[in-house]
Amino acid sequence: MARFTALGDLLGSVLDRGTWLIGGAGVSDAATLAGRADALLSARGEASGVAIAAEILKGYRGLDAEGRLSFFTHLASAFDPDPDAVNAAAAAYADAQSTEALDQLFRVAEPPRQELLRRLNMAPGGTRRLVEMRADLLGLLRDHPDLRRIDNDFRHLLGSWFNRGFLVLSPIDWNTPAAVLEKIIAYEAVHAISDWDELRRRIAPPDRRCFAFFHPSMPDEPLIFVEVALTRDVPGSIQGLLDPARDPVAPGDARTAVFYSISNCQAGLAGVSFGAFLIKQVARDLSAALPNIADFVTLSPVPGFRSWLSSAATDDDEARICAEALDAGPPEEAIKPRLLRLAATYFLDAKRADGAPPDPVARFHLGNGAELHAIHWMGDTSPKGLAEAGGLMVNYRYRLDQIEANHEAFATNGEVLATRAVRALMKG
Amino acid sequence: MARFTALGDLLGSVLDRGTWLIGGAGVSDAATLAGRADALLSARGEASGVAIAAEILKGYRGLDAEGRLSFFTHLASAFDPDPDAVNAAAAAYADAQSTEALDQLFRVAEPPRQELLRRLNMAPGGTRRLVEMRADLLGLLRDHPDLRRIDNDFRHLLGSWFNRGFLVLSPIDWNTPAAVLEKIIAYEAVHAISDWDELRRRIAPPDRRCFAFFHPSMPDEPLIFVEVALTRDVPGSIQGLLDPARDPVAPGDARTAVFYSISNCQAGLAGVSFGAFLIKQVARDLSAALPNIADFVTLSPVPGFRSWLSSAATDDDEARICAEALDAGPPEEAIKPRLLRLAATYFLDAKRADGAPPDPVARFHLGNGAELHAIHWMGDTSPKGLAEAGGLMVNYRYRLDQIEANHEAFATNGEVLATRAVRALMKG
Amino acid sequence: MARFTALGDLLGSVLDRGTWLIGGAGVSDAATLAGRADALLSARGEASGVAIAAEILKGYRGLDAEGRLSFFTHLASAFDPDPDAVNAAAAAYADAQSTEALDQLFRVAEPPRQELLRRLNMAPGGTRRLVEMRADLLGLLRDHPDLRRIDNDFRHLLGSWFNRGFLVLSPIDWNTPAAVLEKIIAYEAVHAISDWDELRRRIAPPDRRCFAFFHPSMPDEPLIFVEVALTRDVPGSIQGLLDPARDPVAPGDARTAVFYSISNCQAGLAGVSFGAFLIKQVARDLSAALPNIADFVTLSPVPGFRSWLSSAATDDDEARICAEALDAGPPEEAIKPRLLRLAATYFLDAKRADGAPPDPVARFHLGNGAELHAIHWMGDTSPKGLAEAGGLMVNYRYRLDQIEANHEAFATNGEVLATRAVRALMKG
Amino acid sequence: MARFTALGDLLGSVLDRGTWLIGGAGVSDAATLAGRADALLSARGEASGVAIAAEILKGYRGLDAEGRLSFFTHLASAFDPDPDAVNAAAAAYADAQSTEALDQLFRVAEPPRQELLRRLNMAPGGTRRLVEMRADLLGLLRDHPDLRRIDNDFRHLLGSWFNRGFLVLSPIDWNTPAAVLEKIIAYEAVHAISDWDELRRRIAPPDRRCFAFFHPSMPDEPLIFVEVALTRDVPGSIQGLLDPARDPVAPGDARTAVFYSISNCQAGLAGVSFGAFLIKQVARDLSAALPNIADFVTLSPVPGFRSWLSSAATDDDEARICAEALDAGPPEEAIKPRLLRLAATYFLDAKRADGAPPDPVARFHLGNGAELHAIHWMGDTSPKGLAEAGGLMVNYRYRLDQIEANHEAFATNGEVLATRAVRALMKG
Repeated sequence: MARFTALGDLLGSVLDRGTWLIGGAGVSDAATLAGRADALLSARGEASGVAIAAEILKGYRGLDAEGRLSFFTHLASAFDPDPDAVNAAAAAYADAQSTEALDQLFRVAEPPRQELLRRLNMAPGGTRRLVEMRADLLGLLRDHPDLRRIDNDFRHLLGSWFNRGFLVLSPIDWNTPAAVLEKIIAYEAVHAISDWDELRRRIAPPDRRCFAFFHPSMPDEPLIFVEVALTRDVPGSIQGLLDPARDPVAPGDARTAVFYSISNCQAGLAGVSFGAFLIKQVARDLSAALPNIADFVTLSPVPGFRSWLSSAATDDDEARICAEALDAGPPEEAIKPRLLRLAATYFLDAKRADGAPPDPVARFHLGNGAELHAIHWMGDTSPKGLAEAGGLMVNYRYRLDQIEANHEAFATNGEVLATRAVRALMKG
Repeated sequence: MARFTALGDLLGSVLDRGTWLIGGAGVSDAATLAGRADALLSARGEASGVAIAAEILKGYRGLDAEGRLSFFTHLASAFDPDPDAVNAAAAAYADAQSTEALDQLFRVAEPPRQELLRRLNMAPGGTRRLVEMRADLLGLLRDHPDLRRIDNDFRHLLGSWFNRGFLVLSPIDWNTPAAVLEKIIAYEAVHAISDWDELRRRIAPPDRRCFAFFHPSMPDEPLIFVEVALTRDVPGSIQGLLDPARDPVAPGDARTAVFYSISNCQAGLAGVSFGAFLIKQVARDLSAALPNIADFVTLSPVPGFRSWLSSAATDDDEARICAEALDAGPPEEAIKPRLLRLAATYFLDAKRADGAPPDPVARFHLGNGAELHAIHWMGDTSPKGLAEAGGLMVNYRYRLDQIEANHEAFATNGEVLATRAVRALMKG
Repeated sequence: MARFTALGDLLGSVLDRGTWLIGGAGVSDAATLAGRADALLSARGEASGVAIAAEILKGYRGLDAEGRLSFFTHLASAFDPDPDAVNAAAAAYADAQSTEALDQLFRVAEPPRQELLRRLNMAPGGTRRLVEMRADLLGLLRDHPDLRRIDNDFRHLLGSWFNRGFLVLSPIDWNTPAAVLEKIIAYEAVHAISDWDELRRRIAPPDRRCFAFFHPSMPDEPLIFVEVALTRDVPGSIQGLLDPARDPVAPGDARTAVFYSISNCQAGLAGVSFGAFLIKQVARDLSAALPNIADFVTLSPVPGFRSWLSSAATDDDEARICAEALDAGPPEEAIKPRLLRLAATYFLDAKRADGAPPDPVARFHLGNGAELHAIHWMGDTSPKGLAEAGGLMVNYRYRLDQIEANHEAFATNGEVLATRAVRALMKG
Repeated sequence: MARFTALGDLLGSVLDRGTWLIGGAGVSDAATLAGRADALLSARGEASGVAIAAEILKGYRGLDAEGRLSFFTHLASAFDPDPDAVNAAAAAYADAQSTEALDQLFRVAEPPRQELLRRLNMAPGGTRRLVEMRADLLGLLRDHPDLRRIDNDFRHLLGSWFNRGFLVLSPIDWNTPAAVLEKIIAYEAVHAISDWDELRRRIAPPDRRCFAFFHPSMPDEPLIFVEVALTRDVPGSIQGLLDPARDPVAPGDARTAVFYSISNCQAGLAGVSFGAFLIKQVARDLSAALPNIADFVTLSPVPGFRSWLSSAATDDDEARICAEALDAGPPEEAIKPRLLRLAATYFLDAKRADGAPPDPVARFHLGNGAELHAIHWMGDTSPKGLAEAGGLMVNYRYRLDQIEANHEAFATNGEVLATRAVRALMKG
């Protein structure tokens, strides 16, 4: 159909047919590239910069690990602000605070690396290449902490370029191009998707939805996606939720939208957060499209519970009993009350040194303004679910009209909102 | 991205999320539907017809095999022209040949079933449902030859509705929606596609192309598709052509486009032929997009060779020797000259009773105006290739400027155009 | 934006840049074309037919009026069924009514012209050219009634090809391509659109909607369109409805959708009716998108009233008084009661010879299942409105759940449904 | 057609139907907004920031001129870096140049206003609103120079966000949505487009092209566009080039692409330059699509010639004679040699204080790497053309393979490249 042709055109420029062909071609060495980077920053003609930028990005891809490290080392050393100029400008600004002094201050204090990155971005496909380059860079930081100054510039610019205002929310379904879908398979980080048949079961049935944020410059690369199940009631187990033999609810009859998996896709965008925006936007869009949906909840793992339990076991008999029971294999019904009580304690009482809840998923959802809705025994009986959480899962609930207030209470006072039922668990 | 949303909208109405839900709902029986069919044909209000048509098509899907047969039996008996009216109109037309007499003749001679089918088509998704209905019908014709009169009306209308002028040629690639791609996997009839990885190897590499015809009313249903490989030279074996380890030629360096697989997709459109249009259109489009491509050839199976050889073996010693050799396992190099000579005879000399070549693939391509370009020893060493053709494959070649003349020569005189090399084979 | 490129691609093949260039090129004469038509019908190769069809359609456009008449004369004389074959097939069918006899009957009774038209349609852009060709033909029928036999075949095929099932409903708004919008300006037949500013006022404001049917083979040619106003109440005057200084209602606050203009666009599709489908589909779509809309009404002209009044004036004093008052200029308030009473009589009592209402717009809407909702004094004070209807306008109302029953009552018994208020008018 | 629906969806969210309705609603005062701006910058929850940002942008639109000035005054005073923190960070950085010191320096030296603007951008439609806000701001700078510090932050961020890598080049033609086309009419700054008919003549004929850059966040707002004519030869007059009665060359026969008008569209993006990128990209794309095009030239005005001539007239008799002749009315043929000689001097010899050519259009094209190709007598006989340039027009020529070198020569040495013919003019 003409429409596919059109789509093909849209994506055609992005899909890298060329990657098959690159191989040995366009060989380059780090020293040459470093020189080109210097040239790029000093180029006065904007358009001639595009050609140099393309050359650098292509050359970079041809470098091996050593070459890349060498290239980064140049970026880290040659593009810092000039300390004397900074000092002078700071003094002048402190003196006058004139527009000119302020302008001059920013000019000399912004690392020239940022301008270099902006110029690299002018090349066709530049944004994608820079995101990939940062992913490489992040892998080097542990052994080469001095490179972190490059990463600071990357993070600053990527944060500005991937501003919420530039992101596009798109449904992902069985009509989505395969080039995008294969990335959903690859990036699903919570409940793995084994193959295309499994993918189809996640996105094609009438009671399933999936949404992703995209950036216009990387239209075939989802940035983050969320998988949603439409149900009648708030679900308590992932096995039941994903059961292929279930009787799917008609969308118009659903009362609940369940966010059961959220996955970040781009290693190179670490630290640029999209999750809070995604959940709220999807909840708002679903709410408009399906007014029958009354509840927006998650079905979430409890990845930190088991290790918290182990450390708690040193002081606490109950915790020790539970920890030993879980060590022995899938938990028996007998420890259910104990385990649930400890889980409630884990969520409501336990704190990290900084006062935040120890569970990373809890920090994310509570920080977004959700409340803890329920804790489920044997909600995830997969090996991973048992190993990390003794089989427990929880629901966080997003009430659209209370998100801001909840967020504020959590951010300011560390207040963990939870239903009466959850709070009752703690008392046994 | 917004663009996927748009595509989702475009396909959304067609993809049958509802099929999950249909189950027992909307039960119907054949007698009721037969009555609704009568009502549909007599309905005077056009728009009210849409509702009845939708009801019949939905009801039909709920029928079991017996119910469908019963429904077809009604269609076959109740919607024939009135013989007396036909006779009267024929006489009046023979008498006067006036516009009115001609108009009246066509009105009474066209089976009312055609108007019934046109009205059924008004329902949302009607075209697709009618194509499915005809597929059912075709399955019944052997045991119920009287139903053929329904099929004549179907074939006439579908031929008119799927006229070349209404078809849209679309590239199929890795950006095509999964809902379409899964059908490519399902319908590939020549060289089976085992899974999505194999599909990706067929359509994503830079030296691969795939094109399909679509009808605007069935935008997620390919009607027929052709798989194309770009190569430097004319290929002689399907193993080599599909070798995942090959070094793919850059499209701009290719000299040859190889049509190596053509598959019809819709059982319900049997007898409505698209193949000739498809090959010529794709050749023309590729020629415009890649002027470097000089040759358009096929790499084709020879499905009738082995059975022809067996029957020839009764009279012909050479054929008997070859047939026995093939029966014994993969052919040995020693029989290559004999086998090629017999293959040349098969293509150039052998004829069916009606004077046409015995090989169905040969009839298709020669009938489209191609010429026989080469015969290849061990071109297809798959079990099927060995069983049907002793491993032989052939190239047919399409020369864009000679297609019409070749076609004419073949259609009028049964002339089989072949290269000197092929003709030389026959002489050994 | 890439999206416009995509759209440009979609429409690119259709928009006739070439028309600038055609001029004298590709000269042809009618006799040659007649010969090509014979060749097209006898061509055996499907694909070679495409070339001949394209040649004929291009040649036809190069013919002057005389040449076209000559070409049509050939079509009318050379492609009739053979009377002897028809008689024989009719007799055989009357005798046996076998599948074969029926098949043979249809083969010989269908004018070969229909197959010729189907083959012409295979050419690129063929459908559009055939619609244009029929528009030419219709202009010749009065002086050349023998050509009507060609038109019967055109009407039959176009009716089949433009079946409701193949049409696509599309909103028309300020984001629609200019190539389509200029046709809305050109084709508006009820309340003329003077220029692009007026067009913008019709389709861009939040309380305005416009929808058109398209055929996939003519994507830049609307077939029929309807203009809709969203209002709080049922409107009584077109001046008020189109007042640029009005305070537009927010779509979510509207209670009424007013169909105030419906225009057919394609002279060559005369007799293929879309209007009933369009109104019902738009009402259904609007109802789903804006559940707050409770009433679907028209604001319609009364084009036959004034002439009916003149003829009624010979027998009826009241009618004579009104007719004379209207002849004297815009009607004075004093005749309002008389005029409204006569208008009610015109709608409820007056009948044509065939029993149908004399007003063509009334026949259309009542035949679609609407009811007469209200008659408005001075609803259209334009010269045309005064001249044709003494300034009267009416509302027809579509109640989605009563359309079928109303239609049936009107079609079967000629029953004109009207509100109590309208009926009361008749009694004065 | 579905495709228009899709486009409607794509643009639907952007087109501001709501603007009809805004009126007095959502009144706000500058002081409240200033407070909200403070709140936005201190908000910790990202998603809650979106709501505040939307509120500020909506409130801003409701402010009158005084309110806006007051709001800007707050932005100028309350979001500067802290001078003491800056001084301390500068000293620490000068001391250690550690990653931490560098990070801290940038944190305190970047004006918090930039973070405020980034957060405002998160609101739906934020980018567009910020561009509009900057347009307001630019209008205030002359009378309120202190606000320039806000503009420095705007320019920095908009420069980063409208980086070449994020722009999309799109053809503009008769299939482009009217919502975009009306902006082409509004923004054409060189040769005014009087109405839609004139627009159609500029973009629809086969020998015309138009291209624009768009940003994905403002898909219905062209940023800059160029109008192109395809011709056989290099044209010498705008009257001839735009003559509606011309015989348009077929695109495949054209040898020359003429850029005859380039217009910036967004006042709020002043200082963010796109022109050089646009011309080079369009030249490259046209070159790929129409390999027959050998020359890329402009047909450009000479806006500074007449005023230069007037000032030259004080010292130079020739100039005085020409200036007087032009003052007297359209120039007579007799002064042609003199005028052309002076024009050559104007381009090749005259310099501004900074050494650059006095003509702004010359600075743009020569700075992009073009060369001066020809000077035409009476190339623009419009009142504006006569008033500004004595009717002269010129061609600049872009040779794709020499652009970089030319640019370098011009940027480094101020070298004005010109053809021998132009240089010969100077000698008379």
